[in-house]
Amino acid sequence: MPPASEPQGNPATIPDASASSSSAADAQHASGRQPTASSSTAAELASAKISLEKALRCFPDFPIPGINFLDIMPWFLDPAVHATLLRSLELQLLHFGGSGNAINPDVIVGLDARGFLFGPSLALRLNASFVPVRKQGKLPGPCVTAEYTKEYGVDYFQMQEGAIRPGQKVLVVDDIIATGGSAAAAGDLIKQLGGTLVGYLFIIEIQFLKGRDKLDSVPVVTLLDVNE
Amino acid sequence: MPPASEPQGNPATIPDASASSSSAADAQHASGRQPTASSSTAAELASAKISLEKALRCFPDFPIPGINFLDIMPWFLDPAVHATLLRSLELQLLHFGGSGNAINPDVIVGLDARGFLFGPSLALRLNASFVPVRKQGKLPGPCVTAEYTKEYGVDYFQMQEGAIRPGQKVLVVDDIIATGGSAAAAGDLIKQLGGTLVGYLFIIEIQFLKGRDKLDSVPVVTLLDVNE
Repeated sequence: MPPASEPQGNPATIPDASASSSSAADAQHASGRQPTASSSTAAELASAKISLEKALRCFPDFPIPGINFLDIMPWFLDPAVHATLLRSLELQLLHFGGSGNAINPDVIVGLDARGFLFGPSLALRLNASFVPVRKQGKLPGPCVTAEYTKEYGVDYFQMQEGAIRPGQKVLVVDDIIATGGSAAAAGDLIKQLGGTLVGYLFIIEIQFLKGRDKLDSVPVVTLLDVNE
Repeated sequence: MPPASEPQGNPATIPDASASSSSAADAQHASGRQPTASSSTAAELASAKISLEKALRCFPDFPIPGINFLDIMPWFLDPAVHATLLRSLELQLLHFGGSGNAINPDVIVGLDARGFLFGPSLALRLNASFVPVRKQGKLPGPCVTAEYTKEYGVDYFQMQEGAIRPGQKVLVVDDIIATGGSAAAAGDLIKQLGGTLVGYLFIIEIQFLKGRDKLDSVPVVTLLDVNE
């Protein structure tokens, strides 16, 4: 395996987009500030989604009977598929919400634990902050807390105070939307800190659980169109 | 905030190192295959570590009295520091173990949950696989299992069968080494799958707990030289 081969200059800078890359050019408005969707990025996204769907594994009746669990872990075994995932998420933000408008979040919020597998990488790629949501007691220092309902009883999520500045545009990411309770609690935490929730991005949706009905009137986007 | 500005070509490829980057040149042997350490990468690593230490926050007596918890979450709030973290981890692999030899893992194993915050990003950067270790019952499909001792009683870690191929070189990453029990269990899982454990890389070590005494005779490296 070759050593890492990303541009190696100042470690604190994000490499510039290549001027010769058509998709990089597509992704930037002429002003150089606002990302825009295009038919070529839509086609690239559609192709990437097919690659990702092919690499999923299905485990029937996990974690409970009646659920066909789609396992995303194989994506992280193959660096090419892993890179495709990150590119897909980035492209999905160019084609976001009902109107297909691009969003450009300042902060990516990821839910413990599978949201941590790709949330930080996406944040790094977008030059955005990454902020974790964890179960109560896991994060040090002053935190805000939100309750959410589980199958049996309630649980509590926390976010560190000061992690989001008032007015920052915040996107919540997680792998699966099931009942939507944990995602709604994350939205609550963001509002407690004064952030502006701009949307939810999931990989997979368990549609019959209607989790998106619990979420606010912001776009709720699922990367893959697979049921469960 | 500008849109992502990494090279945007084939999403399944890692961008080539710039021929004009001296540190990229340093990082590659003339054969183009084997990474090597150098005084310039050592200096870059030392400088990066200072930036990371400055950005830590300390919370006394968390999670229990007597522990000064060093919080790495601020690193993920600032994309420049986040990028410095990834570059530091990459550079640390060029300067690894007692002899300072480079290691070039095929697989990065990260422990649930804070090992997920940077393990996948590091794997992507190294063009390596990322494999999670999770508590029993969290991963679908056939798994191998290892027991580890907690403060009160025992717990079980799992890794999916087939996630590591026999003979692959595997590095375990986590944020903190405390008693070393969970890291030792991860090493056990890697051996059950036939992988070759080549080392452990932690961010921070709680030195008085002597966790590294529990680990095998592979290099155990801590990124930051801070006690607790």
